[in-house]
Amino acid sequence: MTHEQIIKSTLDAIAPASIEHFRAAAERIDNKTKPRGSLGRLEELAQRLCGIQRTAEPRVDKRTIVVMAGDHGVAAEGVSAYPREVTAQMVQNFAHGGAAINALAKQAKANLLVVDMGVAEPVEVEFVRSVRVGPGTRNFREGPAMSSDEMHAAVAAGIEISIELADSGVGMIGLGEMGIANTTASSAITSVLTGLSPEELTGVGTGIDEATRLHKVQVIRDAIAHNCPPGDEPLKVLACLGGFEIAGLVGVALGAASRHIAVVADGFISSVAALVAVRATPHARDYIFTSHKSVEPGHARVLEEIGHAPLLDLSMRLGEGTGAALAMQLIAAAEAFYREMASFESAGVSDSGK
Amino acid sequence: MTHEQIIKSTLDAIAPASIEHFRAAAERIDNKTKPRGSLGRLEELAQRLCGIQRTAEPRVDKRTIVVMAGDHGVAAEGVSAYPREVTAQMVQNFAHGGAAINALAKQAKANLLVVDMGVAEPVEVEFVRSVRVGPGTRNFREGPAMSSDEMHAAVAAGIEISIELADSGVGMIGLGEMGIANTTASSAITSVLTGLSPEELTGVGTGIDEATRLHKVQVIRDAIAHNCPPGDEPLKVLACLGGFEIAGLVGVALGAASRHIAVVADGFISSVAALVAVRATPHARDYIFTSHKSVEPGHARVLEEIGHAPLLDLSMRLGEGTGAALAMQLIAAAEAFYREMASFESAGVSDSGK
Repeated sequence: MTHEQIIKSTLDAIAPASIEHFRAAAERIDNKTKPRGSLGRLEELAQRLCGIQRTAEPRVDKRTIVVMAGDHGVAAEGVSAYPREVTAQMVQNFAHGGAAINALAKQAKANLLVVDMGVAEPVEVEFVRSVRVGPGTRNFREGPAMSSDEMHAAVAAGIEISIELADSGVGMIGLGEMGIANTTASSAITSVLTGLSPEELTGVGTGIDEATRLHKVQVIRDAIAHNCPPGDEPLKVLACLGGFEIAGLVGVALGAASRHIAVVADGFISSVAALVAVRATPHARDYIFTSHKSVEPGHARVLEEIGHAPLLDLSMRLGEGTGAALAMQLIAAAEAFYREMASFESAGVSDSGK
Repeated sequence: MTHEQIIKSTLDAIAPASIEHFRAAAERIDNKTKPRGSLGRLEELAQRLCGIQRTAEPRVDKRTIVVMAGDHGVAAEGVSAYPREVTAQMVQNFAHGGAAINALAKQAKANLLVVDMGVAEPVEVEFVRSVRVGPGTRNFREGPAMSSDEMHAAVAAGIEISIELADSGVGMIGLGEMGIANTTASSAITSVLTGLSPEELTGVGTGIDEATRLHKVQVIRDAIAHNCPPGDEPLKVLACLGGFEIAGLVGVALGAASRHIAVVADGFISSVAALVAVRATPHARDYIFTSHKSVEPGHARVLEEIGHAPLLDLSMRLGEGTGAALAMQLIAAAEAFYREMASFESAGVSDSGK
């Protein structure tokens, strides 16, 4: 199959989560030794896992955070606080275990799969999987960030990674990313997909000053005006304004949904990837958990569009999958109470009937 | 020493957390490979752990959730959705591993220490520690819930448990509780300590209807009017309106603070215990983390009084230490990033200087 055909068949394979299993889980939860509803959103998480995995016994003990890295031509416009080289340096840091996501993934008992989707200079270390679509995207202020073929290759690569993880028994996949200037790409995509202005969607990213932020807004305006008409279909928007790592994560989300695996979005960038997946096929929404609300202003709007309330609000803005790692612990806790708690009857506890 | 002397000497031993270690941690965090401040509240958690433990290398890998149980005479007023027997039944459930806190403590890698502080019928199983102050408190609508001696015994018992945990190397203690009618006691204590009306502080607890809630408000009004003049000192309020499990948790919080151990409050009831500890000595605040905001209306007010923003808001209202267990995972994640992350220099990553 061509990359385009892989994407098409994956989109066709994505069905809604099972409402029957979702409802059956609610009934089972209501018999557990606690006042009904008293575990709040943990109950919803357990129900959703049952619906996603189509089972009364969901398992998320095998879990992986996929961190995709790519460089962005638009970094040449001076939109980030960090030089482009930091993308490759941070991938090396992931490989050596020194980044935040290394510590937080370990805490969450999640494997880390780091993928070079197209860093400017190849990162050649054993720990990093190389699925390079190119040496970074083109500057989308001047034209499309990638060709259709490149977009298809990146999305298909993400799908294939999810299929591989599904085959190895993974029940939950976190989305992480690294790519200097990728908040610029994400704000641009969000603006086109939501109709909201670049001004209100664009924040300080990794820490730029107000003058640089205004410049960033102008770069996004120019890119959208010259390069990507509003109302375009989501995968075309992705090609015009995205990054290889963002496109790869769209594929991870779609592949996971096609195989009934829970997808845990992280911050702004990975949530934009999740939103592109949802726009490509609305049923993908059923498989997505939104982990946290970051301080990046566009993120709250993207979360609203995805339609799931985030689990955490800790003023984070790092990316890498760090928020997803924290949320995975909450989802794992939901799976654990659902699996392990006794019923009123089996524990000999009087029920209020309420 | 008498129980009263134990309490006095513990209060005297509680000093502020170390601002020097708190500040030094901030500097160390700013050199780690991420944009400054980008881990948001996780950074604050790591800093606070350093200040609490007075070290550049805090450890919370040994952690315990202390779940204290007690019965309440005021349950005879029909203020709960569940019969009083459920307190003992749930303690048995804890012992057999079937409750929510069993599943969530295991997820959080926390030991569970279940203490019978005064359940109506003694719970005689090996798993449960017996520190019974009496067969439940008296009905505080009719007079003080406990005598001064009983209050001192319960608080001192909690202190001794924290000292024992400190001696075994525990770095973080979660507060959990079980006691039918203990939201009534907690609303009453909160009303006296804050001056807010029972009406605005009283919710549906484990799930009562509006008529029962209004009755609960009246019971609390009567209790405060006859029994506990506003402005009384916190430990006297505790004796008038508290429960043995609440008093025990006040002791756990004080004992932990005296030994530089982090205390993680759970829902409304354990947060009221934390607030009593803070009112008894303001420096206790430095040692307390507030885990989540429950749906019980008084909880938000108690959290404001304690003065730390809760980490989670998941619409939970179970107690038992369940929210504390979830928050402990976040605090452990903070400790992990702080300990394990590389610096810009050691990882060879370019710093933006911002």
